[in-house]
Amino acid sequence: MTVQRSSLTYAVIGTGAIGGYYGACLQRAGCTVHFLLHRDYAQVQAHGLRVESIAGDFALPQVNAYAHVADMPPVDVVIIGLKTTQNALLKTLLPPLLGPQTVVLTLQNGLNIEAEIAAIAPQSPIFGGLCFICSNKVGPGHIRHLDYGAIALGAYVPEDQPGGVPPQLSAIAADFKAAGIETEVVEDLYMTRWRKLVWNIPFNSLSVVLNATTQEMMADPNVRQLAQDLMTEVVAAAAACGNRGQVQGRSLPPEIVSQMLDHTATMKPYRTSMKIDYDEGRPLEVEAILGNPLRSAQAAGLATPRIDTLYRLVKACDRQPHRPSP
Amino acid sequence: MTVQRSSLTYAVIGTGAIGGYYGACLQRAGCTVHFLLHRDYAQVQAHGLRVESIAGDFALPQVNAYAHVADMPPVDVVIIGLKTTQNALLKTLLPPLLGPQTVVLTLQNGLNIEAEIAAIAPQSPIFGGLCFICSNKVGPGHIRHLDYGAIALGAYVPEDQPGGVPPQLSAIAADFKAAGIETEVVEDLYMTRWRKLVWNIPFNSLSVVLNATTQEMMADPNVRQLAQDLMTEVVAAAAACGNRGQVQGRSLPPEIVSQMLDHTATMKPYRTSMKIDYDEGRPLEVEAILGNPLRSAQAAGLATPRIDTLYRLVKACDRQPHRPSP
Repeated sequence: MTVQRSSLTYAVIGTGAIGGYYGACLQRAGCTVHFLLHRDYAQVQAHGLRVESIAGDFALPQVNAYAHVADMPPVDVVIIGLKTTQNALLKTLLPPLLGPQTVVLTLQNGLNIEAEIAAIAPQSPIFGGLCFICSNKVGPGHIRHLDYGAIALGAYVPEDQPGGVPPQLSAIAADFKAAGIETEVVEDLYMTRWRKLVWNIPFNSLSVVLNATTQEMMADPNVRQLAQDLMTEVVAAAAACGNRGQVQGRSLPPEIVSQMLDHTATMKPYRTSMKIDYDEGRPLEVEAILGNPLRSAQAAGLATPRIDTLYRLVKACDRQPHRPSP
Repeated sequence: MTVQRSSLTYAVIGTGAIGGYYGACLQRAGCTVHFLLHRDYAQVQAHGLRVESIAGDFALPQVNAYAHVADMPPVDVVIIGLKTTQNALLKTLLPPLLGPQTVVLTLQNGLNIEAEIAAIAPQSPIFGGLCFICSNKVGPGHIRHLDYGAIALGAYVPEDQPGGVPPQLSAIAADFKAAGIETEVVEDLYMTRWRKLVWNIPFNSLSVVLNATTQEMMADPNVRQLAQDLMTEVVAAAAACGNRGQVQGRSLPPEIVSQMLDHTATMKPYRTSMKIDYDEGRPLEVEAILGNPLRSAQAAGLATPRIDTLYRLVKACDRQPHRPSP
């Protein structure tokens, strides 16, 4: 493979299922990538990263691995691959990596993600990347990419308007595309976040509460109806969040609900990211995916009783001992 | 023990955790009781009933046991101890037992229970008995009474008014009291049904969906809040069901919600009847406890999104393979 070396340098905070996968793809394509690791540092420092992928397995025997952020060089792009449940770490991890030109690209799910990061990195452009991927870290430095893989990249602006496409975003998108990643650049990041929430709120929550795959959920008419009712509430929340001077609101087309349901019914059986976290005994991204949209809708004066019910059920599942998988 | 033999005769349809327990208590106190049995017939015909009870164990080596309703004599009182999930059987089982003076006493949970029975037994007075008991059938003809045991008896009238206390109801109540059962006669059966639903709707549902005892649920602030929100919706449903000419509506005092929550927090850990059914692999009483109140509220023009969400989740739990208990 002939690769064109990118002029951008990258740091990956959180070298796991998402950050590890996309970071490895970027390095394979010739980008300079610095990986921050925690438990896997010794393994990755010695043996690099290994990716088993439906798009073709590959290994990177040598990577720039770091155990401490203080040892990492300044970079052009910091990619945040941590789960939102670990975001308390960002105020320690992020500032040392930020030079005057550094942009931050967060690959995290949920709502109000960029605002949280902007508070830590107020001088940096903040971009969001929404990943449509099924991947998992199956061992130290060992990532298994099971399905999908597309990413939607958009710019965050803290005002109520689309973020447009700044030149740095285009450059990052070019690197992702050169790395073989199906990449879409979106002008309105919030619109894309809300679209993803229309799916994530019902299916992440219900997969945990009901211990079920997408296929099992869609096969049960009661669950399908509940998913539809939840999606309809998310669409209403998205619209309401434009009220009262709030900036996150977006008007989604109502037909998104039936389109997503129909699409989900024909998907291969899929274990949601929250279900994977649950099965692995990790904390659930309940605040980013459910709590933040819920609170934004409440602040805008809209009650979302179904989302609220699922929020509390998922919180309860997040606390209790985990059930075995079927 | 000196017993005063009652002049009333009883038939028990469904000789299980509830019908078997109360029927056995009545016989022990001197009443004539005829028990309809299905799978347990041979055992009970040969060896009678055995009750292990916190109030004192006892055995009835000889009972009037029947495998077929056609063999049973006419009685004064038919006690329905079947789960509501078996109510399709009633149109076969009930009519042969009904003489011109027979009253029907249903010990079933939920809403709209008496109307369903009245359609099968239009000439009979219908009474409801709400049981506050934790009991279980642990083997053929073998009942384990774990806790509580009180019963509230009330008359059903298909008009929007309390049923009052007909003489037959007083006579039945006297037999129950003589049998050592804590018995309350209520003038307004629907009021008592709604009060019980305020508890049953959240705690039966959540115990199944979250695989939890009352103690575990109350220890989690999110579940307590959700139970409170569900109870508040049930109180609203109870009020709304008086609209549009419907007869089941009742105005409950709003403080019932905090009172029941506080009481539940101090109860001994309790496995709800729906959770017991779930753990035993039996169908769940989801239509009687959730579906009927939900549809009555909808017919009265009230949306109950939280109850609806739990209804669909419990329906899903009723369909999927059962999870093991923790």
